[in-house]
Amino acid sequence: MGDTLIVEKTRLIFAEFLGTGLLVTAVIGSGIMAQALTSDRGLQLFINAFATITTLGVFIFLFGEVSGAHFNPIVSSCALIRREISPLRAVTFIFTQFAGGLAGTALANGMFKRPLFEASLHPRPGSNVLLGEIVATAGLIVIIFCKTTKNRPMFLLVPAWVGSAYFFTSSTSFANPAVTFARAWSNSFAGISPSSVLPFIGAQLVGGVIGFGIALFLNQQGRVLND
Amino acid sequence: MGDTLIVEKTRLIFAEFLGTGLLVTAVIGSGIMAQALTSDRGLQLFINAFATITTLGVFIFLFGEVSGAHFNPIVSSCALIRREISPLRAVTFIFTQFAGGLAGTALANGMFKRPLFEASLHPRPGSNVLLGEIVATAGLIVIIFCKTTKNRPMFLLVPAWVGSAYFFTSSTSFANPAVTFARAWSNSFAGISPSSVLPFIGAQLVGGVIGFGIALFLNQQGRVLND
Amino acid sequence: MGDTLIVEKTRLIFAEFLGTGLLVTAVIGSGIMAQALTSDRGLQLFINAFATITTLGVFIFLFGEVSGAHFNPIVSSCALIRREISPLRAVTFIFTQFAGGLAGTALANGMFKRPLFEASLHPRPGSNVLLGEIVATAGLIVIIFCKTTKNRPMFLLVPAWVGSAYFFTSSTSFANPAVTFARAWSNSFAGISPSSVLPFIGAQLVGGVIGFGIALFLNQQGRVLND
Amino acid sequence: MGDTLIVEKTRLIFAEFLGTGLLVTAVIGSGIMAQALTSDRGLQLFINAFATITTLGVFIFLFGEVSGAHFNPIVSSCALIRREISPLRAVTFIFTQFAGGLAGTALANGMFKRPLFEASLHPRPGSNVLLGEIVATAGLIVIIFCKTTKNRPMFLLVPAWVGSAYFFTSSTSFANPAVTFARAWSNSFAGISPSSVLPFIGAQLVGGVIGFGIALFLNQQGRVLND
Repeated sequence: MGDTLIVEKTRLIFAEFLGTGLLVTAVIGSGIMAQALTSDRGLQLFINAFATITTLGVFIFLFGEVSGAHFNPIVSSCALIRREISPLRAVTFIFTQFAGGLAGTALANGMFKRPLFEASLHPRPGSNVLLGEIVATAGLIVIIFCKTTKNRPMFLLVPAWVGSAYFFTSSTSFANPAVTFARAWSNSFAGISPSSVLPFIGAQLVGGVIGFGIALFLNQQGRVLND
Repeated sequence: MGDTLIVEKTRLIFAEFLGTGLLVTAVIGSGIMAQALTSDRGLQLFINAFATITTLGVFIFLFGEVSGAHFNPIVSSCALIRREISPLRAVTFIFTQFAGGLAGTALANGMFKRPLFEASLHPRPGSNVLLGEIVATAGLIVIIFCKTTKNRPMFLLVPAWVGSAYFFTSSTSFANPAVTFARAWSNSFAGISPSSVLPFIGAQLVGGVIGFGIALFLNQQGRVLND
Repeated sequence: MGDTLIVEKTRLIFAEFLGTGLLVTAVIGSGIMAQALTSDRGLQLFINAFATITTLGVFIFLFGEVSGAHFNPIVSSCALIRREISPLRAVTFIFTQFAGGLAGTALANGMFKRPLFEASLHPRPGSNVLLGEIVATAGLIVIIFCKTTKNRPMFLLVPAWVGSAYFFTSSTSFANPAVTFARAWSNSFAGISPSSVLPFIGAQLVGGVIGFGIALFLNQQGRVLND
Repeated sequence: MGDTLIVEKTRLIFAEFLGTGLLVTAVIGSGIMAQALTSDRGLQLFINAFATITTLGVFIFLFGEVSGAHFNPIVSSCALIRREISPLRAVTFIFTQFAGGLAGTALANGMFKRPLFEASLHPRPGSNVLLGEIVATAGLIVIIFCKTTKNRPMFLLVPAWVGSAYFFTSSTSFANPAVTFARAWSNSFAGISPSSVLPFIGAQLVGGVIGFGIALFLNQQGRVLND
């Protein structure tokens, strides 16, 4: 019984580790590849977005019923507030997501013969860019926690939003503290210089609060009216 | 009871506001981004279409059972004619869609450090372009109101049509008076000069009437015949 | 009763007319647009394929339960051989598909201020190109008539095959006599000179026969064996 | 009865032959086409990936209930270990996949007027590239054999992973010994020189073992815990 519990907990944690890790590998790996393949920055970002959202969709489907497929400390925090998970599990998941993200960075850098960890020299400054992160994260949290419809295909909706926000937000939609931190250690297309990480995470927290509030409002029991 | 009614109405209206607003943010934001990223106009329009249809699909799914996910005065008008909604609700929705669209413009402009509202200098003249709008809008209305099949996945069908019509109609498929008006206030790739707005809306109305007529004809009870 | 019959038949025929017509409009319109937007021929063909398959998917879903959503004389012919439709209906559908295709050409040309009908100057010669048409058509017919699985989402499978075959067959996958004939009357990216039309249709017929044979073989009742 | 058995076996084998063959035709054909259409290598690889995953998705759906739609010796081997198929069937499938792949190469080369078989001059060296193959194959096997969720839409998940891995792995994700061998005989964009084939297949085997181990761990019976 005790063994089963330990196996089960390990399994949940491993799903978060693997999902977050491969998400980061896809983001950074495709960024490196895109830069090597083309000089058109529009196409680079499209390749980057395409690889990101396809991998994200696969692991949301696969691990949704295992760990919830959070892959994101903001999502785990909201799940904690909604009492979907315990405080211990939330802390464990968040720690695991950061660790998984760093492993994903190392794997991507390793596949392309780069130092496993290398600080990015790609600053992403500007209050307007932080506004972009707020919008990207708020939208993500609305989509995940707005339970207005049964059987929402999260493996389609979340990647669709992220893919869209890659192009319409000024920050190209990081929307995830663990992924943001992991991307600081790749000096490539998808990188973010360490000095920009904290402002990004701050904006993501603000966006998370806004998005969670909107989702709560939308989740109020609805009645169909004839005015 | 009265409070519940008010909350419920606010919720419906908010869904239309948010959906139309983020649709416009996606259209304009990705247009600005696309222009900054690449000089290839084909790729610019593809990025613009990609961001538009992914955001559109997400919010049609999410708000379909809340407000109907109209996000479009032509759709609300047809729903009124079909008595799916009351005249008061139709008027409220249409007003909300225009307001949401303007808010979406301001958000997109703000994310990219531009004046929140700035008249577009991008005229879109030509009777052939208006024919494009008629086709784009008629097709949209046929798809939404042609109820020949149960369980139509509108979150796939509507974006598929809009994405296609971005490229095969001469107007790049605005097909929405609220979005057209909102796009007049961004002087960027996705903008339309205010002088072109009324002709576009006129063409959309014509397209709406044609599309609605076609949908009515197709909705007649069908019988399978062996000739 | 007689009136109902007439309305019903008109409705089926109209669905084939509209579906085939808008398919051709999407093919030709996006070809014209692509050429105007970019000089990269890879991107031109991608835009052309993207617009084609999204419109195709929408109308296969919408009209599948109305007329069967054939939009293609080869498909109607195979349906006749399988006795899914009567000879009269097959002839009516095929005639309608050709008429719808021509109307689609006129609409596309009209939206882009071109003569409604203009012979294409784009020859597509070569026996290897005809082999491409055989492969494209055979695959299409296998997918439509290989009934090995219930609830096949034809609105996804058919566009996926057509989109793929745009790029991996040497002919860019016409695979449809009505669409081929219609494309002869647009002197643009997607056109085909009238002299190439008959060889293409001949290759499509060969591909149809091959594909139908493969589908029949695959449809034989299966039993799961343990060798 | 004996005849039925033979027909049934032939049918399974034919499904593996056709599926693997057309997959290779799509990979190689779109590679040749992409090179002819554009000089942008990013767009070339996107066209190549797009054609690959759409064809792959179609035939996974169509043949999933016929033969299991393996199309890949690593997948058949894992199915053998799980006792989903007999040793004889595994050997037959693997042989068929190699034969189908070669036929697919010949068809692609033939459609583009090239020698049916021509050794590729495209070496793909580097231990980091082999790491890419390990990652691509391990991920594929995890996705196929991680049965944590019912009704997994393999026709979406497998192509999504392959499409993603085209861009984020350093090897562009071959992940299939039969396809790798087949690609050695086309001297084009998608080719791989014969001298690189064995190292690739070795890496794929390593990836297969890793992925299978991960899937087994994830498949342990799960219990939802409240920590």
